Amino acid sequence: MTSFVAQNTEYKKTIEEKLTSQFFMHHIGFNLNRIEPGLVEGSCEIKQFLKQQNGFVHGGVTATVADLVMGFAAFTLVSKGKGTVTSDLKIAYLRPGIGEKLEAKGYVVKAGNLLYYCEADIFVRNGSKEILIARGYSTMCSIDIP
Amino acid sequence: MTSFVAQNTEYKKTIEEKLTSQFFMHHIGFNLNRIEPGLVEGSCEIKQFLKQQNGFVHGGVTATVADLVMGFAAFTLVSKGKGTVTSDLKIAYLRPGIGEKLEAKGYVVKAGNLLYYCEADIFVRNGSKEILIARGYSTMCSIDIP
Amino acid sequence: MTSFVAQNTEYKKTIEEKLTSQFFMHHIGFNLNRIEPGLVEGSCEIKQFLKQQNGFVHGGVTATVADLVMGFAAFTLVSKGKGTVTSDLKIAYLRPGIGEKLEAKGYVVKAGNLLYYCEADIFVRNGSKEILIARGYSTMCSIDIP
Amino acid sequence: MTSFVAQNTEYKKTIEEKLTSQFFMHHIGFNLNRIEPGLVEGSCEIKQFLKQQNGFVHGGVTATVADLVMGFAAFTLVSKGKGTVTSDLKIAYLRPGIGEKLEAKGYVVKAGNLLYYCEADIFVRNGSKEILIARGYSTMCSIDIP
Repeated sequence: MTSFVAQNTEYKKTIEEKLTSQFFMHHIGFNLNRIEPGLVEGSCEIKQFLKQQNGFVHGGVTATVADLVMGFAAFTLVSKGKGTVTSDLKIAYLRPGIGEKLEAKGYVVKAGNLLYYCEADIFVRNGSKEILIARGYSTMCSIDIP
Repeated sequence: MTSFVAQNTEYKKTIEEKLTSQFFMHHIGFNLNRIEPGLVEGSCEIKQFLKQQNGFVHGGVTATVADLVMGFAAFTLVSKGKGTVTSDLKIAYLRPGIGEKLEAKGYVVKAGNLLYYCEADIFVRNGSKEILIARGYSTMCSIDIP
Repeated sequence: MTSFVAQNTEYKKTIEEKLTSQFFMHHIGFNLNRIEPGLVEGSCEIKQFLKQQNGFVHGGVTATVADLVMGFAAFTLVSKGKGTVTSDLKIAYLRPGIGEKLEAKGYVVKAGNLLYYCEADIFVRNGSKEILIARGYSTMCSIDIP
Repeated sequence: MTSFVAQNTEYKKTIEEKLTSQFFMHHIGFNLNRIEPGLVEGSCEIKQFLKQQNGFVHGGVTATVADLVMGFAAFTLVSKGKGTVTSDLKIAYLRPGIGEKLEAKGYVVKAGNLLYYCEADIFVRNGSKEILIARGYSTMCSIDIP
């Protein structure tokens, strides 16, 4: 994994402030556990409201947590006063999401002036066993925050 | 748009039965309004819990509704006893999602024996004005339902 | 299809000048047949050197012609002195490419200040019969041309 | 990288036989350098005919070599008498392709009964310096070879 240097030294504080109004993230019960330059991890319990009709984690949940960790991974690298929006998101669903906990790790593959190419690993955890259920790929675009 | 013929004549009933256990769809308040062979539409109100920190519809919500309408559009075409899972989902985010209502239309572009290539239009509505905010692309895979 | 207005009134001339040094396009024998604001079409004969081991058009050829028509479709809309590069390209392969001629149509779905979201239809033609073999999706990014 | 076991013990020989009729691969001058279960590498010189109008490797070439190494990586894992076709291909273009040599490494991320999820790294090399210019992602589908 490429290592990056944050331009905004207060990136962690800035993200933590944003989180209070990240309503949809709260609505699915997802929390960030690790925020480093170009790398963000988070997790949530797999409660019934996150499932689809076969009892698996809904594909939309998997896409949401992938988008969150990749978006925040890009966010750690933008300069002060800037934010990020998702330009393009792709999820490859590898295995059914059956487990107790959903874990997501997003990282920046290439940081440009404007575009950030990111990838993500999405896991389910059952006790000590971790299974990769999806891979995420995205292009994040930096914007001026009003 | 290509027109298709359903192999399972009870496709609408089958989908409606599935919906009771589509927990995540209920969790975001999304409802299907139209179910036809190869074409499904749905909508939800854009309540605060669907938003991210800038006040736009969260990209994960957009991905979720795209996945739902494309998945069900493919579902209308599988034979009895079969279901569908998402193999691959891609969302192109064209414009910020600001509005009263989120509307999604998913349709099958090509139906194979096993794989269904689908696309989706995602709109926000403000009164009579409709704005295309995202395009969705996916490959759905038919599976035997246990 | 959305209709667009070109900002560079000499867009057609600019593209035609570029084509002389579009070496890879010539290497596969592809030609542009239609250049309009936000819409470009082209075609080539399916000679043996464009095929893979099963006798179908190679997936790389399909990706190349999709990239070409979408890139030039975006190019028609940038201002003078600007060019475009591909940020992200996706191809959904719907059917095997068997035929006499390969035809590609690329169009812009949304034009922003910097990013252009495009889509493409790729066909094979046998006499008067045309078959859709792939769909293309891309994000093109405008750049200053040195 | 996940390690895999080939089901067809003659996978290397089978691929080498296929290569004689991989016409488009020859047309771009690409050769495979390494064939292992779930992992394939190849390279070509960046001659003028592989370039676009700005002097960079054409995006279609990058897509082609990504498709080749991912397709053959999946091919190493199918059982005897089976082949693979590309269902879905995505390329993220990270940096302009300027260099002497184009190198591609494709690997399988998850092998299923029918679908193979693959990824690829595409590099340009200048002397001893290697630069990652693109990432590839694909779903390969196993088929019966006629």
